[in-house]
Amino acid sequence: GVGLIGASVALAARRAGAAGRVVGTDRSPAALDYARQAGLLEPVPDLACAAAAGDLGGFCTPVNVIPAQGGEAAVHCRPGTLLTDVGSTKAGIVRDVDGRLPAGVTFVGSHPIAGSEKSGPEHARADLFDGKLVAVTPVRSEDGAAVARVVDFWEALGARVEVMNARQHDQALALTSHLPHLVASALAGVLPPEWQRFTGTGFRDTTRVASGPAELWTAIFRTNRVALLEAVEQFAEQLARFREALAGDNDALLTALLRQGKYTRDSLRG
Amino acid sequence: GVGLIGASVALAARRAGAAGRVVGTDRSPAALDYARQAGLLEPVPDLACAAAAGDLGGFCTPVNVIPAQGGEAAVHCRPGTLLTDVGSTKAGIVRDVDGRLPAGVTFVGSHPIAGSEKSGPEHARADLFDGKLVAVTPVRSEDGAAVARVVDFWEALGARVEVMNARQHDQALALTSHLPHLVASALAGVLPPEWQRFTGTGFRDTTRVASGPAELWTAIFRTNRVALLEAVEQFAEQLARFREALAGDNDALLTALLRQGKYTRDSLRG
Repeated sequence: GVGLIGASVALAARRAGAAGRVVGTDRSPAALDYARQAGLLEPVPDLACAAAAGDLGGFCTPVNVIPAQGGEAAVHCRPGTLLTDVGSTKAGIVRDVDGRLPAGVTFVGSHPIAGSEKSGPEHARADLFDGKLVAVTPVRSEDGAAVARVVDFWEALGARVEVMNARQHDQALALTSHLPHLVASALAGVLPPEWQRFTGTGFRDTTRVASGPAELWTAIFRTNRVALLEAVEQFAEQLARFREALAGDNDALLTALLRQGKYTRDSLRG
Repeated sequence: GVGLIGASVALAARRAGAAGRVVGTDRSPAALDYARQAGLLEPVPDLACAAAAGDLGGFCTPVNVIPAQGGEAAVHCRPGTLLTDVGSTKAGIVRDVDGRLPAGVTFVGSHPIAGSEKSGPEHARADLFDGKLVAVTPVRSEDGAAVARVVDFWEALGARVEVMNARQHDQALALTSHLPHLVASALAGVLPPEWQRFTGTGFRDTTRVASGPAELWTAIFRTNRVALLEAVEQFAEQLARFREALAGDNDALLTALLRQGKYTRDSLRG
């Protein structure tokens, strides 16, 4: 997939000299044309060609299509090929891809916590992963050499890497990424058109991620359904505390809740 | 008040040549020292001195103290003095200030929809209001000349102005500013410390406003309690639709909700 992330991986890999050749394919002819003209990577017509061309493959496609693409690609891979991905959910993908691989082809999940509400290869950047965290989620504990190779790749692209369990990854990301997206979308969704002109930078920052592609996020949400529902539940409980403080004119509780949010937000960089 | 907004008003007024002198006062000696050293404005020791010095006064203080300060200042004002403010809620302020004014002193509410999660005069900028919307909320329909003067002042500072009813302002701002702050704070408040490292730009954008001062926002929330509770209710209903879509594995509804949020967010500039 030659979108924002796939094209950025290509640019970052070339910048790092981490690959002799970078080939890529996409179901969109326009994306492939753009990649060719902008010199992002060598476009190839389909997944079979891409799979046959390399020894390290990465699926930069929506989370719901990665398992099937993994199985399709694997039959064309040379023995010893290592596959990874950049999907935002991991438990389902590592389980489903692993079940489709022939002997000699290994899969290790990856999730670079980097991105943008923008999409498409025209927004790709060689520095997209600089200093960003990449979660690497092995399928099996005996895949040590494959995991090390994926870790080295991301570190060469400028990222910090944490190797972790796929299910734990999904629980963390439900709170740090999927819930914020859902909340931003719900917030934007209740704004009537006649009040748009009263929005300032606060509303725009708070809802920025809601501009992400709806289909992509539907797939992310559904592949992390259980953990996301738990995160929504925790958030709804905090929201209920705010309502209680407001309805009860309880300034002390209101200030305590606002301080709790401020304390956490102030702890984060950027 | 010589904070972010007060000091930015001073800088913008000087940039525009909109005032012969700009004087200011603050309960914080450190803020006044900073204002003197940075040449932001002429610091004076108290509200009485500030009130006696000018013919257009602006309260850049928390919404819960503006009415009492308005009454205190008014007794020191020369006849013909026009007072305004920059408070984020308007209906309570225009009612409460108006009840405390002697004859010859007029109040017209203002709310510049501009700001930052940062506070203090060291973050002040002369261009803070450039192209931003300022809501101007008259107390009475017969204050035409006073309203025109306040409108001219904000336009000289680079802002666009909309004259409107205070109650309508508060309903709009409940959805465009106060609800986003509450939601951002609730979101930050449920993030456990051990998962902070998995936050990306999405989480940070969505929760940025939660860094605002907790006491200031408590005052804003409580002075717009009824409209904010209504906005929270609307948001909670949208959140419930997302939960229903997730729990029921209803991808079509999930995509429709995400598209609704994306459509609105894409309609906003910036």
